[in-house]
Amino acid sequence: MSSNHKSPEEWWSTAIIDMKPGSIRIRGYAIEELIGRVGFAEMIYLMTRGELPHPGAARLLEAALVAAVDHGPQAPSIAAARMAMTCGIGINNAMACAINMLGDVHGGAGEQCVALLNAIAARLGGEATERQIAEAVAAELRVLAEQSISHVPGFGHRFHPVDPRAPRLLALVDEAAAKGSVSGRFAAIGRAVEDALAARKGRRIPMNIDGATAVVYAELGFAPPLCRGLFVLSRSVGALAHAFEEMQSGERNKGPIPRHLLWSYTGPPERPLPKGGR
Amino acid sequence: MSSNHKSPEEWWSTAIIDMKPGSIRIRGYAIEELIGRVGFAEMIYLMTRGELPHPGAARLLEAALVAAVDHGPQAPSIAAARMAMTCGIGINNAMACAINMLGDVHGGAGEQCVALLNAIAARLGGEATERQIAEAVAAELRVLAEQSISHVPGFGHRFHPVDPRAPRLLALVDEAAAKGSVSGRFAAIGRAVEDALAARKGRRIPMNIDGATAVVYAELGFAPPLCRGLFVLSRSVGALAHAFEEMQSGERNKGPIPRHLLWSYTGPPERPLPKGGR
Amino acid sequence: MSSNHKSPEEWWSTAIIDMKPGSIRIRGYAIEELIGRVGFAEMIYLMTRGELPHPGAARLLEAALVAAVDHGPQAPSIAAARMAMTCGIGINNAMACAINMLGDVHGGAGEQCVALLNAIAARLGGEATERQIAEAVAAELRVLAEQSISHVPGFGHRFHPVDPRAPRLLALVDEAAAKGSVSGRFAAIGRAVEDALAARKGRRIPMNIDGATAVVYAELGFAPPLCRGLFVLSRSVGALAHAFEEMQSGERNKGPIPRHLLWSYTGPPERPLPKGGR
Amino acid sequence: MSSNHKSPEEWWSTAIIDMKPGSIRIRGYAIEELIGRVGFAEMIYLMTRGELPHPGAARLLEAALVAAVDHGPQAPSIAAARMAMTCGIGINNAMACAINMLGDVHGGAGEQCVALLNAIAARLGGEATERQIAEAVAAELRVLAEQSISHVPGFGHRFHPVDPRAPRLLALVDEAAAKGSVSGRFAAIGRAVEDALAARKGRRIPMNIDGATAVVYAELGFAPPLCRGLFVLSRSVGALAHAFEEMQSGERNKGPIPRHLLWSYTGPPERPLPKGGR
Repeated sequence: MSSNHKSPEEWWSTAIIDMKPGSIRIRGYAIEELIGRVGFAEMIYLMTRGELPHPGAARLLEAALVAAVDHGPQAPSIAAARMAMTCGIGINNAMACAINMLGDVHGGAGEQCVALLNAIAARLGGEATERQIAEAVAAELRVLAEQSISHVPGFGHRFHPVDPRAPRLLALVDEAAAKGSVSGRFAAIGRAVEDALAARKGRRIPMNIDGATAVVYAELGFAPPLCRGLFVLSRSVGALAHAFEEMQSGERNKGPIPRHLLWSYTGPPERPLPKGGR
Repeated sequence: MSSNHKSPEEWWSTAIIDMKPGSIRIRGYAIEELIGRVGFAEMIYLMTRGELPHPGAARLLEAALVAAVDHGPQAPSIAAARMAMTCGIGINNAMACAINMLGDVHGGAGEQCVALLNAIAARLGGEATERQIAEAVAAELRVLAEQSISHVPGFGHRFHPVDPRAPRLLALVDEAAAKGSVSGRFAAIGRAVEDALAARKGRRIPMNIDGATAVVYAELGFAPPLCRGLFVLSRSVGALAHAFEEMQSGERNKGPIPRHLLWSYTGPPERPLPKGGR
Repeated sequence: MSSNHKSPEEWWSTAIIDMKPGSIRIRGYAIEELIGRVGFAEMIYLMTRGELPHPGAARLLEAALVAAVDHGPQAPSIAAARMAMTCGIGINNAMACAINMLGDVHGGAGEQCVALLNAIAARLGGEATERQIAEAVAAELRVLAEQSISHVPGFGHRFHPVDPRAPRLLALVDEAAAKGSVSGRFAAIGRAVEDALAARKGRRIPMNIDGATAVVYAELGFAPPLCRGLFVLSRSVGALAHAFEEMQSGERNKGPIPRHLLWSYTGPPERPLPKGGR
Repeated sequence: MSSNHKSPEEWWSTAIIDMKPGSIRIRGYAIEELIGRVGFAEMIYLMTRGELPHPGAARLLEAALVAAVDHGPQAPSIAAARMAMTCGIGINNAMACAINMLGDVHGGAGEQCVALLNAIAARLGGEATERQIAEAVAAELRVLAEQSISHVPGFGHRFHPVDPRAPRLLALVDEAAAKGSVSGRFAAIGRAVEDALAARKGRRIPMNIDGATAVVYAELGFAPPLCRGLFVLSRSVGALAHAFEEMQSGERNKGPIPRHLLWSYTGPPERPLPKGGR
């Protein structure tokens, strides 16, 4: 492979950042010009997309990042951050424990939902009627069903009958679409998925935080893996806040349940070691 | 310990988030009110501090978060994120690899510098003359010297003669202090440390990004471990952007140097296994 | 879901370990009986499989664990462990960085190869002729090809023309099969895959460490995900040894290439920030 | 720094492993000679120490590695491995979550105890009477007390009145000392610490698993950070076994407590967002 013969500098090439002594440029912009003039959400957009967002896009991105910061210590990631903080490791290590858990099941629904929304959009031309959208939705739901995926990512919640974050994010997308900041087509697709699920199940399976942030990220054109990454950036805030709160508790080696409780054992009964061994 | 007899719900108590079916409240505020009305930096402040920041504080926090997002793939954390992404793990796992490396040496200088600035401030009353500040600085630098800490955290850079991020952040702190948003005392202390180091070394050892963000975070009253956490949130953006860029390269099992290069071996020469063994 | 109504003790039930004050039993055996009487490889088998291995199985498992401990600092995992150790984190955190990188691409070939070997075996009855094996191999290679998997996991190496670990492990499997400790059927299948690849490519693509350990683990009946886990246990030894060696270097923030080298920048040229901003 | 001008190959130099196409040598030994002839514990010793252990040392190391594999899902590391496995990440990532938690508090007691035993030994000449040992112990316990370290690492257990692993490991050290495999001096020091603690507290605070493995590792001459690493290797077996068991449960996003239980909220009451905002 030709990559074998790259120089060390070529091996580590990047289009993100350029540096000279006394100079740091991000995507071509001097860092000292960015500091104080662009917001953190805009910087996230610039770093991951290569260009600064227009103001409407920045506002939507910011809303989605705000929405997903925390869902409480019942989430394995947040519980892990808190437990980790009592084990004598740095707060960055505790945050890494949490982030490491945001996998396909815990942190991947947004990414999967964006992929679904994109797949539906790819079946449609530039403009689409409600009926065309419904047909494209039905076609993609059949694809999921053929893959035996029973749970449509981004819809339904085992705790919230309606996830309060979703309608608020959707309303912001509608506002942005009314101003022409975004197309609004992914919001329409998302709602059509919701309708299709309701028709199929006989009750509403409302869009959840993953579905609503997926609508935002799809409207903004983020690639699916970046959507997982954006969720990580957001939930990292929760990991930090919970790790710090637990740090102040002074607890040591915090396990999942209080110490007067033990686990139940379901294995073989007491038995002696067989004769022989080593 | 009484904590042994907590109920599972008490074992996992938190002051950060409250939840009921259909309701999520962060520090008492309904999530749907926060979304779209507070920025991501404000949400970070609310989550970690318990209250919303005033606008001047939010602006400074945002500037500090923007400043530290990336310093290129020479940093072990960013290199790790890129290498990890070629190993067949999720983008969240690659980000966790990076964040896990932001330890005392790689990610701790800001935290250590805040602790230093706080220690100097603790030697001063409400108001302090330049001379009093200089004396307090000298006293704390002696404490570091007694602990054989030769490198004062937050000052000097092995690549940048002047770190372009630092003067820009300091200027923003000065602006905020002029408006009364912050006291400006930690900026004064930071500069006094710089002067003391210059006098001692015979050349300027300018404040770096860690020192400048430490000034910001100290002005805003963040506890030292949170300062490390804020750096993690910021550098996670770089980890995400670099992981995603590397993902698109299609590289597999990217090592630290190109494949036509191997390491140099410094161990014992070829030798046969001793007779016997198992 | 009924799991929602488990007690905390039931939520954490396990068949691996039972504990009472003063008593620890692993799979029913008292820990103090195991210590000093079973080897580490046997303990690994007991923990993961539920029963102690017979001596021939223990010997093969031990050989496979020994074989994969290290492949040098060119491997991203080992490089990560070394870099991490210079960042001011604990040696356990540095090891975690390495292990976190042993994903589908870096650490998954053994697991994938076991799955392949099992799939081939599932096409065969109890006894199989060479010709039947060859047909089953051909059928499964077609399945891989239909999934556009061009690289058969466990075969070929980009550095070693012949991986010296593989023939040695195969010889040990042959010995064990001659003694009746294992069936030898997976060694036969592995060799048949090698032959099929040679016939198809016109040159030998020899079994590598992943293929050879997969043969061992398949002979011993380990489930595929455990095979990844066993590789992790083995390579963790390399992560530890390298992290400790790097620790002694006194290096700080070790990047992937020496500091006099920088990366090459491929992004947009210098540009001013657009007017407006926030 | 001269290290800045190393070549990439020198930057990654190691005394652990040498490679040429078709050849892998660990500490000078051909890998194919090691496989099947040295045990896994011996390989761990060779990798971390540079030489093969004598058989008595190998046996003690193996006993210590066997002893610490698991202490149940109440331990934060093991709980984390199980929770992680339900989040849609690889089994290596789940293991990394566990290992990342083996910090100063959760995984560091053995390392700290070895350091204590070494410090006591450093106060003694080659041969020492019981009284001299007792005096050295008292001196080092005073050092800990001056550092406000109330809990002597390696002694006492909040669950086991006597940790069943400790006396068994000590008995093996005694056996090895009787055969001249090890000196036995660290076993004597460990017992002297136990006596001193009993005299001070008025009840026995018996050596625990960390203390007993520390005695073993000190007898074998392992540096303290390696002792943490050895514990990581051992407990990784538990992480693997528990992650795999949980994987088979089919649970998704397993939190720390059953889902019908929620956390208790201790923060501010419901409040409206202040007017203004952005």
